[in-house]
Order: sequence, then structure tokens, then C-alpha cells
Amino acid sequence: MENANIDAANQALNAVSEVGFTVSNIWILIATAMVFVMHLGFASLEAGFVRQKNVVNILFKNIMIVAIGLLSYYIIGFNLMYPGGEPGGFFGFAGFGLSMPDGAAGLIDYAGGAYGYHTDFIFQAMFAATCCTIVSGAVAERIKLMPFLIFCLLFVTLSYPITGMWKWGQGWLDQLGFYDLAGSTLVHSVGGWGALAGIILLGPRSGKYTDKGIKPIPGHSMPLATIGVLLLWFGWFGFNAGSVLSADPGAVSLVFMTTAMAAAAGALGAFVTSTLMFRNYDLSMALNGILGGLVGITASADGVTGTEAILIGLICGVLIPLAVTFFDRLKLDDPVGATSVHLVCGIWGTIAVALFGNYGDGVGTMQAQLIGIAAIGAFTFTFAFAVFGLLKLLMGIRVSREEEFSGLDIHEHHVKAYS
Amino acid sequence: MENANIDAANQALNAVSEVGFTVSNIWILIATAMVFVMHLGFASLEAGFVRQKNVVNILFKNIMIVAIGLLSYYIIGFNLMYPGGEPGGFFGFAGFGLSMPDGAAGLIDYAGGAYGYHTDFIFQAMFAATCCTIVSGAVAERIKLMPFLIFCLLFVTLSYPITGMWKWGQGWLDQLGFYDLAGSTLVHSVGGWGALAGIILLGPRSGKYTDKGIKPIPGHSMPLATIGVLLLWFGWFGFNAGSVLSADPGAVSLVFMTTAMAAAAGALGAFVTSTLMFRNYDLSMALNGILGGLVGITASADGVTGTEAILIGLICGVLIPLAVTFFDRLKLDDPVGATSVHLVCGIWGTIAVALFGNYGDGVGTMQAQLIGIAAIGAFTFTFAFAVFGLLKLLMGIRVSREEEFSGLDIHEHHVKAYS
Amino acid sequence: MENANIDAANQALNAVSEVGFTVSNIWILIATAMVFVMHLGFASLEAGFVRQKNVVNILFKNIMIVAIGLLSYYIIGFNLMYPGGEPGGFFGFAGFGLSMPDGAAGLIDYAGGAYGYHTDFIFQAMFAATCCTIVSGAVAERIKLMPFLIFCLLFVTLSYPITGMWKWGQGWLDQLGFYDLAGSTLVHSVGGWGALAGIILLGPRSGKYTDKGIKPIPGHSMPLATIGVLLLWFGWFGFNAGSVLSADPGAVSLVFMTTAMAAAAGALGAFVTSTLMFRNYDLSMALNGILGGLVGITASADGVTGTEAILIGLICGVLIPLAVTFFDRLKLDDPVGATSVHLVCGIWGTIAVALFGNYGDGVGTMQAQLIGIAAIGAFTFTFAFAVFGLLKLLMGIRVSREEEFSGLDIHEHHVKAYS
Repeated sequence: MENANIDAANQALNAVSEVGFTVSNIWILIATAMVFVMHLGFASLEAGFVRQKNVVNILFKNIMIVAIGLLSYYIIGFNLMYPGGEPGGFFGFAGFGLSMPDGAAGLIDYAGGAYGYHTDFIFQAMFAATCCTIVSGAVAERIKLMPFLIFCLLFVTLSYPITGMWKWGQGWLDQLGFYDLAGSTLVHSVGGWGALAGIILLGPRSGKYTDKGIKPIPGHSMPLATIGVLLLWFGWFGFNAGSVLSADPGAVSLVFMTTAMAAAAGALGAFVTSTLMFRNYDLSMALNGILGGLVGITASADGVTGTEAILIGLICGVLIPLAVTFFDRLKLDDPVGATSVHLVCGIWGTIAVALFGNYGDGVGTMQAQLIGIAAIGAFTFTFAFAVFGLLKLLMGIRVSREEEFSGLDIHEHHVKAYS
Repeated sequence: MENANIDAANQALNAVSEVGFTVSNIWILIATAMVFVMHLGFASLEAGFVRQKNVVNILFKNIMIVAIGLLSYYIIGFNLMYPGGEPGGFFGFAGFGLSMPDGAAGLIDYAGGAYGYHTDFIFQAMFAATCCTIVSGAVAERIKLMPFLIFCLLFVTLSYPITGMWKWGQGWLDQLGFYDLAGSTLVHSVGGWGALAGIILLGPRSGKYTDKGIKPIPGHSMPLATIGVLLLWFGWFGFNAGSVLSADPGAVSLVFMTTAMAAAAGALGAFVTSTLMFRNYDLSMALNGILGGLVGITASADGVTGTEAILIGLICGVLIPLAVTFFDRLKLDDPVGATSVHLVCGIWGTIAVALFGNYGDGVGTMQAQLIGIAAIGAFTFTFAFAVFGLLKLLMGIRVSREEEFSGLDIHEHHVKAYS
Repeated sequence: MENANIDAANQALNAVSEVGFTVSNIWILIATAMVFVMHLGFASLEAGFVRQKNVVNILFKNIMIVAIGLLSYYIIGFNLMYPGGEPGGFFGFAGFGLSMPDGAAGLIDYAGGAYGYHTDFIFQAMFAATCCTIVSGAVAERIKLMPFLIFCLLFVTLSYPITGMWKWGQGWLDQLGFYDLAGSTLVHSVGGWGALAGIILLGPRSGKYTDKGIKPIPGHSMPLATIGVLLLWFGWFGFNAGSVLSADPGAVSLVFMTTAMAAAAGALGAFVTSTLMFRNYDLSMALNGILGGLVGITASADGVTGTEAILIGLICGVLIPLAVTFFDRLKLDDPVGATSVHLVCGIWGTIAVALFGNYGDGVGTMQAQLIGIAAIGAFTFTFAFAVFGLLKLLMGIRVSREEEFSGLDIHEHHVKAYS
């Protein structure tokens, strides 16, 4: 009788574990779908911010990036980023394709009982393509399609997973105490460094920097850009709160709140700063302020208070018009402001972990954060510069002047965005 | 041994409570993200329904409203709407910023074990900005940006939380038996009354009401408007079913079903009525019919059958073309039909609680519903009229004739929606 | 004391069952909202792929289809598709409207404890309208509004539920071992057969097939089409993974992964094939490749590996440009490629179940799959052809030449898509 009692109680405890697992697993899958929406957000934003003659091209690139990102992450990237083995390494590879790791006899034995193997893969795979999408906007309106897709394939298959492994795959930065919840550095700065390498090697769009000063080249559709930013904000709830990697109520609730507050503060910061700087209610600055706030909070969304999140986002918002102006002074032409948003705010957000984050002894120290920023920046920029440089030598990366003038849509796609 | 058994069983029961809490909490957060999408929906809808020359302006306003709404609700609004203390009051304030209420030692002790403190805040905060977004559409194409943003700040920080507290903060209307699940009155009519005050004080757009009759001013993009309405519908599942404030399967399932049926019936009602009235298959009427159906079911979505929901929605659909015509006769110019959708259908939906709702003794009586409609209407309209009136005196609220003619985008933002 | 122990343990077990039910139920409702987004996706895609003069018309149709689909499924369709009674039948009807089936005393007793009655209805209802939306795109730019809506009403009320019952309502195909997880055949091919019947009876758009060859008629907005496809992809996660009909972690995770991989592979397959065939980076082919991959994986998403999903999707992608070319050779004019995407890839996906699927003895055999494809195809095509044919006789289904030339928007809706 007593044994029966114990059995019933244990049976109940096991059943609870399974249901708890089911909740966390389904949440991470829902978060995966939300992160997927970010690709739609990027496609809309970038399409909105380029000229009408290059819209089909940017849409085509962003579609193909998602496809390439998912497929290459399936074949190679995932096992490069999560190689298993001893923690603390610089590089590892667990083999091609997906395969249940040893010891994960059942789903619930994987990842400490919070989510299954396929969930782990598909959530991470959705992240992977993001780093290329960020580059896509910066090099828009002048890069050739084929070399760009080759760059993306290499960037997402090799560069992103290797530096990602340093932290999320229990690599050396993780052992050092570097902290980055959802990728201010690991995703956004990585994209930003790739973008910077690209625009240095490509040069600015014709007519952007003239003897008479900097000529603004307005995007062709503000509604499209606005829709894109709000879709990105929506998706970011999944990006940050899914990165809790469970449905833990305290952590997920906090992340939702801090993510929203930083985005709102980013809009406000950019609104006030750009109004003072340009005497103009500048929609694209407010939009990039939102994105900046989101990038900035991404590293520390689970370790700061709401008020700290507002402060982090506000500073991101202030940084946006300053960074846009700064890059323009350097004649680094970035049609969508990707370097300002993802690189500058990504670095700031990673530093903010050390200033505000609350992660316990030795985690998120200023030293660890700076080493992480520098190491990942150096690796990524070098990788991207080398690949873009090689492609420039081998096949050229920039479209002809005539093609740039008449638009990439007609030349590469034989179709117009609007008929 | 027996103690061990009891311990194991109790441990299991506690674990079940925690998992149950986790499920409800994650649902309300997902619903929060869905409500966020409504802001994108409103931005798209309103942008689609205005003329091309005012598109950037409406997008800018809607972006800033979300930012202002979230930030002010964080600092003041939330604690004004949920002051705690004795039930039945008219006004209360629990202090600036967020702070865990006394007695909520752990997350699970808060809100009866269904969701955490931060979840509560962020779900409610997403609602708050909605009331201003509704006003935004009605006053579009002629209001000055700065006074509008000041109005929004005051409306969302003070007016909305005070009347919200009367019901959702356990205030006097709640004690009276007034019922409003997700805000037919508390959100939508509130927005509608604000809109009405605004358009009375602003006057109609130039050229709308002429000696030769009412001149229709068609919106600049029907695809944008349609996307907006369908995004609103999507978000409304979170708005209504999240307002169950738990993942309770019976209630949430019912709300999903009634919400969808009312929206569908709203489309049908508006389609048939407008086809009979105007001899025309009118897309904007069908779209507003959907929104009307959604507003109408918002108060009673958890207390009616599917058939009753269809009836409620159908009447909303019929009301839409009638109300649009009615407001036009009064020369109250509302570019997006916000007063017809949110005020008229919001009132009808609140009355429908008394006609069809099934909430037990003394809850949702006709008397309580009418008192609620009247009290909240009187307070909100007075507040909005006073604020808009004061702003009109102090700084003017209407753009110049020349600015209205050439468009707000060029004057206030120095940029065009489409290049 | 011992009894108390047993009670506590049993109480815990019951509580676990309830929470497990709550998780599955909320997941299927969230999936419902995601499937709803597919209607927005279809509306955007089809609007993007038609000419500017017919945009309001296609938006109006897609809005009304959702409304008609939900309402008719409530009144008749659901009880036609799930009649209860003996398994293995060809036809049954459980009566008008919704009513809790006998024996389902409580929510948790319904559907084996995974979801409630209203959840079951609303999830299925969201699916129903899809079959008409597919037709809508194929017959665009030349069909009269009223006969089209009458066709939709009959198609979604009678044809779709009857063939749906054969499998999902435990009908004769289910007994035979036919397998179709989420509707490669039951939803997508059904839509495709209806589309085929429609375009045969309607004839091509004027000017499409000329003496000088096939004239491409490009869609009016590539951004709209792209947004549509990515929204469809997002919604498809709910469509396929919701069709697991529980939150079972293993199955839902697998479906998310296979769905994403097939879509990505579809894009790649269409990209490579169309680049080889047309010497052009064709955006609309890549977009339809994604949709083809999604349609193709829909039948077997829960029974194949990731690598098999990639193979299935890749073949879909290759099929798209071939099928588009094939239908064009037959002078079957399909403005959005609905027959290529939904009919061709739907058939292939249903066959793929037999080739790759892993469902145990006698389930998903090649014989069963082919019988299912043929039987549902024959019934649906006959039904659609008869209804369209009858409507053609009774009231005509094609707009006048003049109306086609000047556009349906001005003639049927007295408004332009863009002002």
C-alpha cells in the first residue's frame, strides 16, 4: 500500500516534469516563429529604405538569405556552433547534419528538460540568417547578387557559428564570464562588422558624397519601412524572451518588459536627439531608434530592471543620429543605417551588461565584455573583409555604373517592383 | 514513510501549481506580443486611409504613441490604474514606477497564481497606447504634431488609467457590477470619445463638406488599409483572449471562437448594408465592419455563445455604414471612421453584455452597463475636450491652410512617403 | 492516513492532466491565430501578383471569403466534416450550428484530453476558408464578384467538408490508411482543383496568350507579394504544427523543423531551376518555390527527417517553374500560380508520404495515397466544375471585356487601390 502511494506520487512528479518540458518546448517553438517574422521585418525595412529601382533585388536577397541560412545551418552551422565536448574551446565540429547527441535517449533528457533537440536546432537556425540580413541592408543598391550570396553562405556557415560557439557553445568566452543573452554582440555586432567590411570594400553609392556635401537618398516607401520596424519589434520578443531557453515565468516576463521599454526609450531618444540636431521630425531616425533600443537591450534583457532598460534604450536612441552622422562623415555609405543600429548599439548593449547587469560573480565583468567585443569584432571583420576582398578580386562585387544608374531590378531580375 | 508519501504528493501538487502558473503566464505574454501587433495594424490602417501627402505624419504619430504610451504607463499609468487598497474607489495612486506590491513574496503569489507582476504590467501597458491610436486616425491630416503628442501623453497617463481603474482596478464601477471583459468601453469607447472631442475642436478637413455636398476623400492605399485590419484581427485574439488573464481552456477557447465569429459577422453585416445603401461593393465599409464586430464583442467575448456573437457582430456591421453617414451629416470629419468603429460599436458591445452576457447575479445588468457607459463617456469626453481646448488656446492644434493643402509630410517631416 | 496519501497523489495526477490539457489547448489556439495570418498572407500575395486596376477587387474577395468561410463552417461545415458516428463513411451530418457532442461532459473529456470543443471548431474553421482563397488567386482579374462569392459559399460549405470528412472525420479514406497530416491534399489540392475548374471555364485574361506567344503580365507590387509569402510561411508553422492536435513536444518540434527546411529547399530549388530555365533571378519563382515547399511538406511534416524534408521541398521548388510553364502551354491562365503551387505540389507532397513517411503498418501506403488523391480530386473537380458551370449558365461568371480592360476596381467598387 505504501509502495503504491509512493508510486502514485512519483508518477505524478514525472508527469509534472513532462508537462513542464512541454510548456517550455512549445514556448521556444512559438518564439522561433516570432524570430522568423524578423526576416519579414528586415525584408520590409530594407525594401522601404532603398530606391524603387532596387526593391526587387533586396527582396530577392532577403528571401534567399533565409533559405541559405536555414539549409547551411542544418548541414554544418549548428554542429559548428554547438560542437559539444570540453567547454572552453575555440573551435569544434560535431559532424554534418542533425543527429541526436549521445546520452539524449529521450527528448526530456536533452537540454536539462526544457526543450527538445529539434526545437534547439530550429530556434538557433532562425537566428543564424539574421547576421546576413543585417549586411544585406548596408550593401544594398550596389552589390552584385551572386558574390553577395556566396559571401552570405560563407558568413553564416562559418563565421557566425564559430564566434557563436565561443559563448553559446560553451567556448572560451563563456568560460571567461562574457555574457550576451540573445546576441547584442553574437548576432547584431557580428552582422554590423560584416556590413562595415562590405561597405568599405564596395564604396558609397554614386552621387551620395559629392563636392557639395552629403546628398540624402531617401528610401522609396516609408510605410514599408515602418511596417518592417514594427514587425522586427514583434519578432524581438521571441528573439530575446525565447533566449531564456525555457518558459521560466520570472525571466521571460522580465525580458518582455525590458525589451519593450528599451525599444520605446530608443524611439524617444532618437526623436529628441534628431529633432534637436536636424530641426525636423525624422521618421527614419525614430524607426532606427526603436531598432537601436532593441539591439542594445538584447545582451542584458534578463538582468536589468525596467528603469535600467529605459536608460539603455535611451542612450541607443541618442547614439543613432550621432552614429549615422559619424559614418556619413567617414563616407561610409549605409542605406539603411545597419552599422549604426547593429554595430554601435550592439557594442553599447554588450558594455551595458557590465554596467547594469546582475549575473553573479565573474559573469558579465567589464573585462570579459570588452574582450568579447574585441575578439568577436576582430575575427568577424577580418573574415568578412577577406571574403569580400577575395570575391572582389575573383569576380567583382560591385555592379556597373550603368546598372547602378538604371537600377538592379531591371538588370538582374528583368522586372520592376511596381508595374 | 507515511510522511515521505505525503511529502512526495505535496511536492507534486506544488510542482503542478508552478507549471500551471507557467502556462498562464506564457500565454499572457504571447497575448501581449499579439496586442503589440495591433499597433502595427492601426499604423497600417490609418496610413492606408489618409492621403499620400500625410502618410509619414500618421506613421510618425503612431510610432511615438506606442513609445509614449509604454513609458508613461511605466512611470505613472500602471499604478494609477491598479492602485491597490480598498475596492470601490474613484481614484488612487500606488506611486511612481514599478515595484512589487506588498505580500507578493514570490511571483506565484501575485494575481492568484496565474501570471507574474511584470507580465501584468506589460500586458496592460500594451493596451494603454491603444486609446491614443484610435484618436490618431480620427484627427489625421490636419492636427499639429506637437499638441497631438502632448494630448496623447496626458490622455494615456491620466484619463485612460483613471477610468480604467473604475472597473479593472476594482473601482466603483466594478463594485456596481459593470462588466467589460477587454474594453469595449474601457479602451475603445474611451478612444472614441477622445476622437470625438478632437474632431469637434479641429473641424473637418478642407474641402470635405462643400456647398455641393459631402466630398469623399479616398485613402491612398487600400492594400495598406486591408493589411492593417487583418493584423488588428490577429492582434485582437490576444487582446480579448489574453484578457481572460489565465490560460483557462474553457474561457480562452470560447473567446477565440466568439471573437472570430463577431468579426466575420461584422464584415457580412457591413457588406450587405453598404451594398444596399450605396449600390457598391465598398471595401472600406467591409474592413470597418470587421473592426466594428471586433470592438462589439470585446466586452462580452467570454460570456456569450457563438450564435450570440454572430448577432452582436452582425449588428456592428449594420451600424458601421449608418454611423459613418450619421457623423458625416453632422459634419464631423473622421478620415478613418474611428468614431463609428470604436465609439458606436463600443457602446453597443457594452450594452450587449446586459442583453446576452451570462455572468451571474448582479454582474452586467443593464443599469450597471448604462451607468458605466455614461460615467466613462462623460469623464473622458470632458477630459479630452478640456485638453484639446486648452492646447488650442495655448498653441493651436490645427496646421495652417497652406500646410494642409501641401501636406503634413513635407512641412513637418521634410520627406515624402514615397520617392 | 494512507487514504489521505492516495488522495493527495491522485489529486496531483488529476491536476497534471488538467495542466497538460491547458498547454495543448492554448497551443492549438495560438496555432489558430497563426493560421488566420495565412489569410492576410494570401490577400497580400494575390494583391501583389495582380495588376493595379484589380487590387481592390482581390482584397474585397479575400476579406469576404474569410467571413463566409467562418460563418458557413459554424452553421454547417464543421458538423459535415466531423459528423461523429461510425468510422469509415462517405457522408454524415451532425446538425446545424455548434453543440457539445454527447459524452463530452467536460472540456477535458473531449478529443482525448488535448483540446476543447470550441478550440477544435475554431482551428478547423480557420482552415476551411483557405481552399477558397487558393481559388481566388487563380481566377483573379476576370471573374465577377457575386458568382465567385456564391461559388465560395458552396465550395467551403459542402465540397471541402465532405472530402475532409473522408480522412479527418474518420471516413473511408482514413480507414483505408490514407495519410495527410495538415492537408497537402485535403486543403491545398482541393483548392487547386477548384482553381483549375475555374480557370478552364473562365478562359485566360485578355492579351495573355497572343499569336506572338505568351505575354507575361507582371504583378503590380513585388513587396506586397513578398510580404504575403513570408506571412504565409509564418502561418504555416501553425497550420502544420497545430495539426499535431496537441503540444506533444516530439511531434511539434519535428514539424516546425521539417516545415522550415522544406520551405527553404523550395526557394533554393525554384531559384536554381528558374535561373537555368529563364537566365534570370526570378523573384516570383523563388516566392512560389517557398510556397510549393510548404504545400509539399504539409502531408508528411510529422513523419519525415529533416533531410527528407529538404528533398521533398527541393523537388517542389524544381516543379514550380516547370508547372508554371506547363499550364501556360495549355493556355490555362493562373495569375498567381495557384495551380502550380497548391495542386501540383499538393499531389507530390501526398505521394511523398508513401515514399518517405514513417507511420506504421498500412498507413500512408502508395495505394492509399493514390486512391486519396484520385478520389478527392475527382469529387472536388467535378463539384467545382459543376458549380462554376451552372453559375456561368445562370448569371455569367466573367466580367465584360470593357470592365476587364478598365479594371474591376472602378467597375465593381468605384474606387482605386491607390489615390
